Amino acid sequence: MAVRIEHDLVGDKEIPADAYYGVHTVRAVENFAITGATIAQFPDLITALAAVKQAAARANRDLGLLPPDIAEAIIDTCEEIRAGHLHEQFVVDPIQGGAGTSTNMNANEVIANRALEHLGHPRGFYEMIHPLDHVNLGQSTNDVYPTAVRLALVTALRRLGDSLGALTTAFAEKAAEFSDVLKIGRTQLQDAVPMTLGQEFTTYAVMIEEDRRRLSEAAALLLESNLGGTAIGTGINGHPRYAELACAYLAEISGEPVRPAGDFIEATQDCGAFVQLSGVLKRVAVKLSKTCNDLRLTSSGPTAGLGEINLPPVQAGSSIMPGKVNPVIPEVVNQVAFEVIGNDLTVTMAAEAGQLQLNAFEPVIAYSLLRSLTHLRAASDTLATRCIPGITANRAHLHDTVHRSVGLVTALAPHIGYAASTTLARRALATGRLVKDLAAEAGLLTPEQLEVILRPENLTGHSAPPSVAVR
Amino acid sequence: MAVRIEHDLVGDKEIPADAYYGVHTVRAVENFAITGATIAQFPDLITALAAVKQAAARANRDLGLLPPDIAEAIIDTCEEIRAGHLHEQFVVDPIQGGAGTSTNMNANEVIANRALEHLGHPRGFYEMIHPLDHVNLGQSTNDVYPTAVRLALVTALRRLGDSLGALTTAFAEKAAEFSDVLKIGRTQLQDAVPMTLGQEFTTYAVMIEEDRRRLSEAAALLLESNLGGTAIGTGINGHPRYAELACAYLAEISGEPVRPAGDFIEATQDCGAFVQLSGVLKRVAVKLSKTCNDLRLTSSGPTAGLGEINLPPVQAGSSIMPGKVNPVIPEVVNQVAFEVIGNDLTVTMAAEAGQLQLNAFEPVIAYSLLRSLTHLRAASDTLATRCIPGITANRAHLHDTVHRSVGLVTALAPHIGYAASTTLARRALATGRLVKDLAAEAGLLTPEQLEVILRPENLTGHSAPPSVAVR
Amino acid sequence: MAVRIEHDLVGDKEIPADAYYGVHTVRAVENFAITGATIAQFPDLITALAAVKQAAARANRDLGLLPPDIAEAIIDTCEEIRAGHLHEQFVVDPIQGGAGTSTNMNANEVIANRALEHLGHPRGFYEMIHPLDHVNLGQSTNDVYPTAVRLALVTALRRLGDSLGALTTAFAEKAAEFSDVLKIGRTQLQDAVPMTLGQEFTTYAVMIEEDRRRLSEAAALLLESNLGGTAIGTGINGHPRYAELACAYLAEISGEPVRPAGDFIEATQDCGAFVQLSGVLKRVAVKLSKTCNDLRLTSSGPTAGLGEINLPPVQAGSSIMPGKVNPVIPEVVNQVAFEVIGNDLTVTMAAEAGQLQLNAFEPVIAYSLLRSLTHLRAASDTLATRCIPGITANRAHLHDTVHRSVGLVTALAPHIGYAASTTLARRALATGRLVKDLAAEAGLLTPEQLEVILRPENLTGHSAPPSVAVR
Amino acid sequence: MAVRIEHDLVGDKEIPADAYYGVHTVRAVENFAITGATIAQFPDLITALAAVKQAAARANRDLGLLPPDIAEAIIDTCEEIRAGHLHEQFVVDPIQGGAGTSTNMNANEVIANRALEHLGHPRGFYEMIHPLDHVNLGQSTNDVYPTAVRLALVTALRRLGDSLGALTTAFAEKAAEFSDVLKIGRTQLQDAVPMTLGQEFTTYAVMIEEDRRRLSEAAALLLESNLGGTAIGTGINGHPRYAELACAYLAEISGEPVRPAGDFIEATQDCGAFVQLSGVLKRVAVKLSKTCNDLRLTSSGPTAGLGEINLPPVQAGSSIMPGKVNPVIPEVVNQVAFEVIGNDLTVTMAAEAGQLQLNAFEPVIAYSLLRSLTHLRAASDTLATRCIPGITANRAHLHDTVHRSVGLVTALAPHIGYAASTTLARRALATGRLVKDLAAEAGLLTPEQLEVILRPENLTGHSAPPSVAVR
Repeated sequence: MAVRIEHDLVGDKEIPADAYYGVHTVRAVENFAITGATIAQFPDLITALAAVKQAAARANRDLGLLPPDIAEAIIDTCEEIRAGHLHEQFVVDPIQGGAGTSTNMNANEVIANRALEHLGHPRGFYEMIHPLDHVNLGQSTNDVYPTAVRLALVTALRRLGDSLGALTTAFAEKAAEFSDVLKIGRTQLQDAVPMTLGQEFTTYAVMIEEDRRRLSEAAALLLESNLGGTAIGTGINGHPRYAELACAYLAEISGEPVRPAGDFIEATQDCGAFVQLSGVLKRVAVKLSKTCNDLRLTSSGPTAGLGEINLPPVQAGSSIMPGKVNPVIPEVVNQVAFEVIGNDLTVTMAAEAGQLQLNAFEPVIAYSLLRSLTHLRAASDTLATRCIPGITANRAHLHDTVHRSVGLVTALAPHIGYAASTTLARRALATGRLVKDLAAEAGLLTPEQLEVILRPENLTGHSAPPSVAVR
Repeated sequence: MAVRIEHDLVGDKEIPADAYYGVHTVRAVENFAITGATIAQFPDLITALAAVKQAAARANRDLGLLPPDIAEAIIDTCEEIRAGHLHEQFVVDPIQGGAGTSTNMNANEVIANRALEHLGHPRGFYEMIHPLDHVNLGQSTNDVYPTAVRLALVTALRRLGDSLGALTTAFAEKAAEFSDVLKIGRTQLQDAVPMTLGQEFTTYAVMIEEDRRRLSEAAALLLESNLGGTAIGTGINGHPRYAELACAYLAEISGEPVRPAGDFIEATQDCGAFVQLSGVLKRVAVKLSKTCNDLRLTSSGPTAGLGEINLPPVQAGSSIMPGKVNPVIPEVVNQVAFEVIGNDLTVTMAAEAGQLQLNAFEPVIAYSLLRSLTHLRAASDTLATRCIPGITANRAHLHDTVHRSVGLVTALAPHIGYAASTTLARRALATGRLVKDLAAEAGLLTPEQLEVILRPENLTGHSAPPSVAVR
Repeated sequence: MAVRIEHDLVGDKEIPADAYYGVHTVRAVENFAITGATIAQFPDLITALAAVKQAAARANRDLGLLPPDIAEAIIDTCEEIRAGHLHEQFVVDPIQGGAGTSTNMNANEVIANRALEHLGHPRGFYEMIHPLDHVNLGQSTNDVYPTAVRLALVTALRRLGDSLGALTTAFAEKAAEFSDVLKIGRTQLQDAVPMTLGQEFTTYAVMIEEDRRRLSEAAALLLESNLGGTAIGTGINGHPRYAELACAYLAEISGEPVRPAGDFIEATQDCGAFVQLSGVLKRVAVKLSKTCNDLRLTSSGPTAGLGEINLPPVQAGSSIMPGKVNPVIPEVVNQVAFEVIGNDLTVTMAAEAGQLQLNAFEPVIAYSLLRSLTHLRAASDTLATRCIPGITANRAHLHDTVHRSVGLVTALAPHIGYAASTTLARRALATGRLVKDLAAEAGLLTPEQLEVILRPENLTGHSAPPSVAVR
Repeated sequence: MAVRIEHDLVGDKEIPADAYYGVHTVRAVENFAITGATIAQFPDLITALAAVKQAAARANRDLGLLPPDIAEAIIDTCEEIRAGHLHEQFVVDPIQGGAGTSTNMNANEVIANRALEHLGHPRGFYEMIHPLDHVNLGQSTNDVYPTAVRLALVTALRRLGDSLGALTTAFAEKAAEFSDVLKIGRTQLQDAVPMTLGQEFTTYAVMIEEDRRRLSEAAALLLESNLGGTAIGTGINGHPRYAELACAYLAEISGEPVRPAGDFIEATQDCGAFVQLSGVLKRVAVKLSKTCNDLRLTSSGPTAGLGEINLPPVQAGSSIMPGKVNPVIPEVVNQVAFEVIGNDLTVTMAAEAGQLQLNAFEPVIAYSLLRSLTHLRAASDTLATRCIPGITANRAHLHDTVHRSVGLVTALAPHIGYAASTTLARRALATGRLVKDLAAEAGLLTPEQLEVILRPENLTGHSAPPSVAVR
């Protein structure tokens, strides 16, 4: 294999001749062989890194710190990367020591060597374009890396928001379809009082819609950047006007309203925005998991379960029980939720472990959050496309449970009191007879009164109508 | 012991004659003997329950559903409870089955019996004022309990906010005191570049101040009430105008901008606001813990540690090592943080476990959150009053470390390049000589240039000034 | 209030004249006002502390380091404390900084002053018996406190083991009662194949019995003591024979096979045994929660649920829905499980945060574990006495679901193949007809063959019989 | 693309003609597109699946249930897979709904089609060898999948044990090298009393060695198999002698002492062994993280840190600070520890969520545990090879801190009392003078006495010698 020699503080190192990355990247690949994967599995992160490097180069060019030809070569290379090229050159492990230094070094080296190529120079000719003196000019891993991670998270978060939007719509459409289907609502898994299946599905739509708003709030926190703070936020080696310029360019390039943090030293070490996002993702996971628990429960059966709804069959359920259909789509969503909740703990511990002017553990924070965002989106899409639209209701069965429900006695309590109602309920349960009949026989209310009071449609209430529009 | 007999669906039960609580409370006390404590340990919760009951009674009176004399007796009793009386009658365990029913029953019974007393009737004379038919009129545990819990949380949260405000001030004052103390900033625990001790303390102030804002956002979510939704949110047995009236009265009584939720069915089952608050409390815990880790680290010593600052001694540190002083205040804050993070997991699991129209596990959610809020506040107060104000700086030692620091080489890199700077740094480290001297000897820069570049005061930067005012 | 003056490195301090505790305790009470409770809420811990102090005094007496009269006064006092006296003098907060120093100081002071009283001296006359020079002789918080905590945990753990044993028996008895009740087993909440209700309850018994064994293993790890290691495990200031003697006395006093750790330095800082115990308690919690989830699920109804079993009513279920009975006992167990799982996280974080030769956060570890043990025991007892024995089965309903189950087709697959069985199952489901009838009509098997193959009793298998004996 | 048509209960489906997998696999690939990866990333799992299928085929052959030629073709195919072939045909996502059914289906189909090839038949010719009727004969996902997962975990666990063994050795060797290096031990980050650096490193060796034993205990629990329990543990459709035979064959094939569980119904649904293993892995993570925290702390500097030891430089530490070397290897270990602790939570939630006769969430349990095992091993290897062996001690600096330490006063306390020692310590600290000199001047002890008492070598104790042999 053809090689070139590069040098760092450890010594000389052979680099594959055709590699765009260099010595710092190779050291990192050797030092961190943890997950078997590379940061290229997160294209949003690679793209965001290129955007940051591009913004920095533009700012340095404007400030006269970078020769125009070198600046243009760097800028062009960043454009290429943002267009999806060269991602396979980002070969460091996403779980890495060094607070993201290896990821930043990887980017610096790939950009330098590709920029050299643009100018007709061989790889490794760093006297011309140096990964650190030029590509990383006025920068530190400690401002570049968190800024790129935040930008990547916002990108992924917007996509998750869209997916949750589609899921909300799926539930809302189903709610409209089921708006006239009466069922018994339950508290603590025990029969309570009537509602409609449409109201139940509206609930899911509303819950998820609310989470989208929390995601947007989290995004706002992530868009504060410490770019220009360099090593520890004091801005050492940075041009006084760099921070403002670089941030403005980054906003332009990314299309996101990135803005400078209020205190760069604080912003360099604080992982609060990551913890906040992680908490919101955990909330989304909790809601999705609860919703899927309900779907699995109400579709239980077919003979010995609740049997209220049917999920569409999407594959054979068992290798031994022919014809069995299982709620596999909700089940996979549950599992993603558990994973996301676990990831939240990883993020929490990593954030807590930060010391003094820097959190050295941002790589595992980025890794965990990017995976949570990606997996949640996949889970939401799967649920929205492969499960919800095909759900059907067992209307006759649901009607029958409402008709026979002892819970209807609740509606009598305002008329005959809690104590008498309790007695009535216990008798209905013991005899298996209808509340209506027993109440009439006991002369507690007239059949006409009972007819009006116990008409289930009257019992599902003046609660707010579905507030989520089908879009 | 004198007793009276009360009755429920399980049968007859002896109740202490002088107890304001009744049969449902006694059953719960027997069924749930878990923590050894009672809900009276959370006065905010008792007060909030009384506020809800008071608001309900006012609304029912206005709607003509409750006779004026009974309404007034109930309202007066709620005022008494809100003033701190009768709390010892709230005897159910905070960890209880039944989704809060026992807490609601306890409130209904205490209020009914005390209201009976106001009207000159004996306890247990429920034909006159019934715990359920009157005190609980138009209500369900499922709207009363979450509303009261949310209100109690907001009260506790406001208090935590005040405490964090005082802590912010303590840090900001110390930051002002230390604004001229140079030190070496650190990344990954390794010496990095200079900063001031004032900048370091400002960071803590800024971090905590930001958390106060997140707390306020969480409060807003908690102030959505499902009061009027009754059993499952459909509003069964509720008067159409009740929800609006009761909510308005609750806002008036509590002084908090309580408002009706958009979808009562969703609001009755959704624990999203609790998960959100818990996530924010976890964030506060993470920040406080990180801050205390730093304080313990920089005060390590006195001989073999970093020895940058001294925490005020507040007690003898050791039973075997005389004269030893330990960072006991930060240590207790760390432990509260770990507890709060654990509580967040409890809240998460309880929220995820909700099924269908109700989450049966709200009691442990309320318990965990109220404890987190109370303990965090105590920890914050302890830190703000017993530790931060007494911190002193070891100025001479800090100055010396800056003077001798190899990290100063960073400032040379823009002038002599990354590679040459690396060589210089390694030599300084190997020889123990100053970067400045070695650079001059090597003719890399003139002594005059070095003087300007390496002046530490010039290196602490144009980062944003402390943004937290001393109040 | 009458006071005496005591002195520490912070200065003079007024102590209530009748208090057995002294200056170090009072400082701690002021410094740590977190939970509002005191360590007296954990009598096992107070008793264990007294046992350790008693063992130390005996060893020091034997070694000639402590005058016999002082030794005896100390020993007698420890006996009193172990008998339940003076616990109210243990007034420090269980969550405290200082790695347990304040708890140890509290013990030293109470024992010294009570021992002084035994010898006819006034409180505070430390020239005669000094809390540190005599009571704490040859000891450090860092060996006394962890040893006492471990012993307290073992005591609490044995009690939990007994409670789980009683719970196992309750399930096993119920399993015997239900051994002839056929039901449809379920996988993924969908009807699977027949089993007996007795088999289902046997499962719960077996699961919990296994956990008891894991608890015993955890106890073995906890019984390694670092007593004699003093400050950091090097045994500074300790007599060479002290460790062996003190440990032997502790085993004798406590009745537990306490033994010296293999490496005292490691044992002084390592929290592995706490993490292990916490993991096992989490495991117990997971099992109990899963079991209670099942109980709530199979008792859902009464009309619209699975309705397989009935839990005994123990209180009224609702303040608005008369006659409603809820599964409140399983619900409270679930909540305790969530709390224990949260506590496990607290323990994990505290253990991870230990630094160098000591873990400063053992107080919150002890607090969390003692609470988990106590609450789990209460939950287990509640379940074993208030729920399991009263469970009844809805035999007719269960029989009917087996009869109509499409899952019976599984038994045909070995005879007619997976593909044909799938077709048959789908048809049975679509038509609502019995598998048996359809199979006969299609000529796949003769009615006689079907009779034998599909007899449910033949399908519940040759699996191992209940392996947990009713004791 | 050439295709063949296969059929399931959803309908017809095109399968790539050259694929060994079939319709059930393709459905699963479509349904579960979550992680972007396949189960082939876990070769231990694929190998274990093949071992189980091989054992089943042998048992069925012996029982006369499978024709010899078909049995041999299946057995040969399993051998191929165990040798590493065909793994790329295992294409389902590791996070999947269906309790592992899709993984089992994938295995059944690949084995059937490859076995068909062995017998000269085309793929899809299932009339000859059917994935379910032959390859899955007498089996269910619910016994095959957990058995394979357990076996895979044991394999990975043994490997982790070996890695931890190598890490133990690395620490023990370094402990021997540092056995004569005095240093100040610390409690609560404050200077305590002397010890040797060798003792400190021995501690790490002992801690990790203990974890290896816990891993072995966890392995024992995992080796209980429910093979033969089929769908829910009742053994429906299974031959009475199958369980015993298949298990014996599996032990022979795998070389692990697999044994039948005591209660198959319990074993089919219980995830206790997974929770236990996860708890132990969390314990390992906690220990490794604590150890790496210590390494990062004691190597902090070079100028302003503790500066006790030096970690070998393995890469440049900073893109802006030339010459900076960071503790990147410990940092990556910390991050893996945080990930493992997060995974433990995922496992816990998934285990708790199991319902009735099966836990549907085993796939995410397997996924989390296999990742934890693999990542922990990688982290341990990295630490053992790239960090520990190259550590050096700053002997002069360490000696100096011991000499100047105020903590030496501890050794005087037995001679002059706690109170006088406290005064002495405070004076030493205030004046910066040596404890020895002040004590002599004050006439508390003679210079000769002090010489003996304060000789640091005498203070590092009679604690147990390093108990971990260098291998």
